[in-house]
Amino acid sequence: MAPTIDFWFDFASTYSYPAAMRAEALAEAAGVKLNWRPFLLGPIFVAQGWRDSPFNLYPRKGRYMWRDLERICARENLPLKRPDVFPQNSLLAARCALALDAAGRPAFARAVFAAEFAEGRRIDDPATLAALLAAQDLRESALAEASSERVKQALRAETEEAQRRDLFGAPSFLTQDGELFWGNDRLEAAIAWAAARPPIARLDRPSLRRQR
Amino acid sequence: MAPTIDFWFDFASTYSYPAAMRAEALAEAAGVKLNWRPFLLGPIFVAQGWRDSPFNLYPRKGRYMWRDLERICARENLPLKRPDVFPQNSLLAARCALALDAAGRPAFARAVFAAEFAEGRRIDDPATLAALLAAQDLRESALAEASSERVKQALRAETEEAQRRDLFGAPSFLTQDGELFWGNDRLEAAIAWAAARPPIARLDRPSLRRQR
Repeated sequence: MAPTIDFWFDFASTYSYPAAMRAEALAEAAGVKLNWRPFLLGPIFVAQGWRDSPFNLYPRKGRYMWRDLERICARENLPLKRPDVFPQNSLLAARCALALDAAGRPAFARAVFAAEFAEGRRIDDPATLAALLAAQDLRESALAEASSERVKQALRAETEEAQRRDLFGAPSFLTQDGELFWGNDRLEAAIAWAAARPPIARLDRPSLRRQR
Repeated sequence: MAPTIDFWFDFASTYSYPAAMRAEALAEAAGVKLNWRPFLLGPIFVAQGWRDSPFNLYPRKGRYMWRDLERICARENLPLKRPDVFPQNSLLAARCALALDAAGRPAFARAVFAAEFAEGRRIDDPATLAALLAAQDLRESALAEASSERVKQALRAETEEAQRRDLFGAPSFLTQDGELFWGNDRLEAAIAWAAARPPIARLDRPSLRRQR
């Protein structure tokens, strides 16, 4: 049984884009499994008093982030086109991703991120999401299911779990022994951590937290 | 003439500690010169509405930061002892560093960071700073000069320049062509950027900003 990392992302999150594009190859090379978990950062930001992205609330940080993202994407050979609206409403895309099964979720997630940040398209448009599902040969009924009570509740539950697990940003990587790594720039460290030890069935933070 | 990076740090900043300990060896190996520039983050935080460290204002982020720092220090073989007070008042240490000349500043800065984060000592205590100066064979009169109008004004000017250059956190690395890199985890990228091109005498941001 391969060690597994929960890869938490929000489709509105800029740094989740390079992370989503890089994660699978790195994890596979290290023998680590990824569990793709879309969630909403919005409620977590609101809970700490932010009604907008910190990159909009703090313009210096925002200017820096866009330039930093440019450099990262150039280094990783990822196209980057800044969307007109930031942050975008990621609710429908996240629900769509959850309506798909785990096998279809990564390809859909990458397609959404590419539409948003490589092409600068809106991801809150049902027509766009339908086209992405079709282009990836994924179940197009996922779009209708996205509005079902079951899927809405599933996304609420995921977002609540993210909050319970102390997440405060995206992307975040959570190992089975409860180590949290935040940011695209911690992806390699998260994978190395997970690969370095056998998986642990149950989480029991204080006693299992390793010092190394 | 070697390319130069301005290495902006605040003695109160946790991530400035591993950056200060790692910077010289990495820069030297790449043929890059470092210009060590202590400044105060406090006025920049206050200007954006924070009256305390964001790691205290946002407890999730704070808990994460300390654990992340533990992991980074373990990887870099740096001792880490969390000081009782955080953030510490870095004013006197920053003035002392500026009272020294550029040749003495790096050794003093590393000694202050080690006292603070490897030993958990207070760095606002003149006796501690005097002992660090003595232990590094540095000019002990720097401590008295730290309270001179000249040095006070020098630190104010540095902090104003940091603000003008759009800095919003520490450590920050600024290349001669005006590229800003923020965080200990961007040190390598900053050095690679600086090493990749010959130094530019004058800054003229819009036209010199390279796309790569």
